[in-house]
Amino acid sequence: MPTTAIRETRLPSGLRVLTDPMDTVETVSVGVWADVGARHEPAPLNGVCHMLEHMAFKGTRRRSALDIAVEMEDVGGNMNAYTSREHTAFYAKMLKDDLPLAVDILADILQHSVFDPEELAREQGVVVQEIAQSIDTPDDIVFDHFQATAYGDQPLGRPVLGTVETVEGLNSDTIGGFQHTHYSPDRLVVAAAGRVDHDALVDLVGRQFTALNPRPAKGDLHAHYTGGEYRESRDVEQTQVVLGFEGVAYDDPDYYATVMLATLLGGGMSSRLFQEVREKRGLAYTVNAFASSYIDGGLFTLYAGTGPEDVAALTPVLCEEIGKVRTRVAADEVARARAQLRAGILMGQESTTGRCEQLARQILVYGRPISNEEVLAELNTIDEAAIVRVANRVFSTAPTLAALGSIDGMVSLERLKGWI
Amino acid sequence: MPTTAIRETRLPSGLRVLTDPMDTVETVSVGVWADVGARHEPAPLNGVCHMLEHMAFKGTRRRSALDIAVEMEDVGGNMNAYTSREHTAFYAKMLKDDLPLAVDILADILQHSVFDPEELAREQGVVVQEIAQSIDTPDDIVFDHFQATAYGDQPLGRPVLGTVETVEGLNSDTIGGFQHTHYSPDRLVVAAAGRVDHDALVDLVGRQFTALNPRPAKGDLHAHYTGGEYRESRDVEQTQVVLGFEGVAYDDPDYYATVMLATLLGGGMSSRLFQEVREKRGLAYTVNAFASSYIDGGLFTLYAGTGPEDVAALTPVLCEEIGKVRTRVAADEVARARAQLRAGILMGQESTTGRCEQLARQILVYGRPISNEEVLAELNTIDEAAIVRVANRVFSTAPTLAALGSIDGMVSLERLKGWI
Repeated sequence: MPTTAIRETRLPSGLRVLTDPMDTVETVSVGVWADVGARHEPAPLNGVCHMLEHMAFKGTRRRSALDIAVEMEDVGGNMNAYTSREHTAFYAKMLKDDLPLAVDILADILQHSVFDPEELAREQGVVVQEIAQSIDTPDDIVFDHFQATAYGDQPLGRPVLGTVETVEGLNSDTIGGFQHTHYSPDRLVVAAAGRVDHDALVDLVGRQFTALNPRPAKGDLHAHYTGGEYRESRDVEQTQVVLGFEGVAYDDPDYYATVMLATLLGGGMSSRLFQEVREKRGLAYTVNAFASSYIDGGLFTLYAGTGPEDVAALTPVLCEEIGKVRTRVAADEVARARAQLRAGILMGQESTTGRCEQLARQILVYGRPISNEEVLAELNTIDEAAIVRVANRVFSTAPTLAALGSIDGMVSLERLKGWI
Repeated sequence: MPTTAIRETRLPSGLRVLTDPMDTVETVSVGVWADVGARHEPAPLNGVCHMLEHMAFKGTRRRSALDIAVEMEDVGGNMNAYTSREHTAFYAKMLKDDLPLAVDILADILQHSVFDPEELAREQGVVVQEIAQSIDTPDDIVFDHFQATAYGDQPLGRPVLGTVETVEGLNSDTIGGFQHTHYSPDRLVVAAAGRVDHDALVDLVGRQFTALNPRPAKGDLHAHYTGGEYRESRDVEQTQVVLGFEGVAYDDPDYYATVMLATLLGGGMSSRLFQEVREKRGLAYTVNAFASSYIDGGLFTLYAGTGPEDVAALTPVLCEEIGKVRTRVAADEVARARAQLRAGILMGQESTTGRCEQLARQILVYGRPISNEEVLAELNTIDEAAIVRVANRVFSTAPTLAALGSIDGMVSLERLKGWI
């Protein structure tokens, strides 16, 4: 495993700067990750984080929207951003000599955006289109319904994009106010990976990020998983089925065992769900399982898309596989899941953007970088018994079922509960 | 720019083996790229290439479907495949020591697949689900309709997945026969990038790929672009609009100028379409332009998704931008497009899978590796006049319009023609 030389500096403001140098590439990825996401939004402002992410590209005191795009693309760099339920990220990849420009732009859009009302009105139209695109994509929107059902009317249950109503209700003041409140130095991490010198980056960041508003830390969060059922009849070719359970938080002692359970159950072509649902029964093209975590909770999810004539057959098969994995897993399955995760970690090391993002997220979640060696050591402690135990933990929680499509033939959640 | 040490060996059978070594990584990507795609299918067998791609994973004389999945994932490797209109690819990424296993599996599935009728029956169900998923995804299926409209009832106009009818009509003999006819050594390329030794790979491939059927070269292909109009009313939130023209073949002298035109017009945040359609007018979340090429032709495509109330406004704006770029482009736009393409080439060098695929495709398309220096030299010759000339060439061909959604308010293709 290649050695890494990750370095971390905390500026006097509390802003953390991390670098993961790779001297074999000519490029660098750099970004700002914020411990701010949809779950930090008050209900009437649902979607404000994501709108703030969009509006950051719409003009600062010094730069128009066009300037932001042109300056980065003039040097062949590209800049992007995303919002999730817990994080917002702004990042860029460029040739190594253009790092100062990227830091200058990142600092500008995160501290000096003007949120011009005319620009906002247009961008509200753009985001309404983004919402429409998501609604039109069944295997996308079904996960929003799943999330809303799993967490009910809590922040974690709301869509990242917001709704047409909440998005159209935002104004420049609410967006600027939200940024002022939440984008404090101790909730931001600047991370870079690739051809980068740590001291030079610290110097650039120290000189540019001087206008962030220091604030007291955010209040405690409490994810309260409820479970439940959502069914939507829609005239489509495929029925989307998401069956979920309460998973584990990032800092849960069962975190790695849960990731291994998801890999073994539905992570690859050799996984139980792929073999049973797709290979043996031909019921689905896409079928998988995955574990997702939050600071204070998590979800464990099984997903498949199937035809109207197979809907009735699909969920009992999922339940049967759940029952089996609660009873027994084989040593070779566990070894294979570990090998897949191990190789995934190594392969992830080859991408500057991947390394940069991984590092930033580790800082936001754990407060420190987690070495590959540490992850591998954790994976090595997990045996068959641990996975069976975790399967029983996860699958004894209340199920969440979200289905969209031809749902008439589907068994009820109540009946499913009896099978799990 | 990092130097590369690409090596090529042609085995006595005609099979070519290429390597692009990178000594800074611990992994290797290896694959077989075949000069065989949906356009080589007879009409009644539409989808046979793609079904062959699926069935390659469903069992050989030595291995069950489960064996294939398990052997690769046991070592943490992953294997994947795709089919396009001109190519089929089977590739894997793994830790460097597992290369012999990957070559063994690739050789096995491409030469000794059994196409068991029971497995086929199940896999037909899986592919029917894949087709259903595509139909349910408006911004996916609209491009199939676009392609069918651009090329009419010709091989290039048909969907890669086939139709439910043609897929259900396939049997083990037609699939095996198609493979026997088309998978000849001179139409295949084995390529690897990453931690790989050329001579060792040549040795492995020479020993394993001994059962391919040598055949005369395939007949000539003739792409005949027609253009035309497709409109489908569907009850969705967004209307999908694809406006296309005849583009250029890979070996066209205007190939690179066309790529630059697409970049400048709709390739990034600073591009004309992004600025005009999204930033200035807020008409779309996704809007872009791209050039795609075939051996003997190509397409130049503008795409946007918009709301029902904006459909009427969108296409005139696209036409206006087409008119402008036929008149004038600025030196800074051209320099920016060049910088973006240049950086994209450099960034692509960092991925083993990307390098491996690029190399294989260059061999299939051009018969030789194309160095980055050569591409950059080509890009450097293209000035404003060349791009305006190419814009006039492309945009004076017959347009193709495909729209899906709320289409009542859309202007007709005839009227659009008058504006271009």
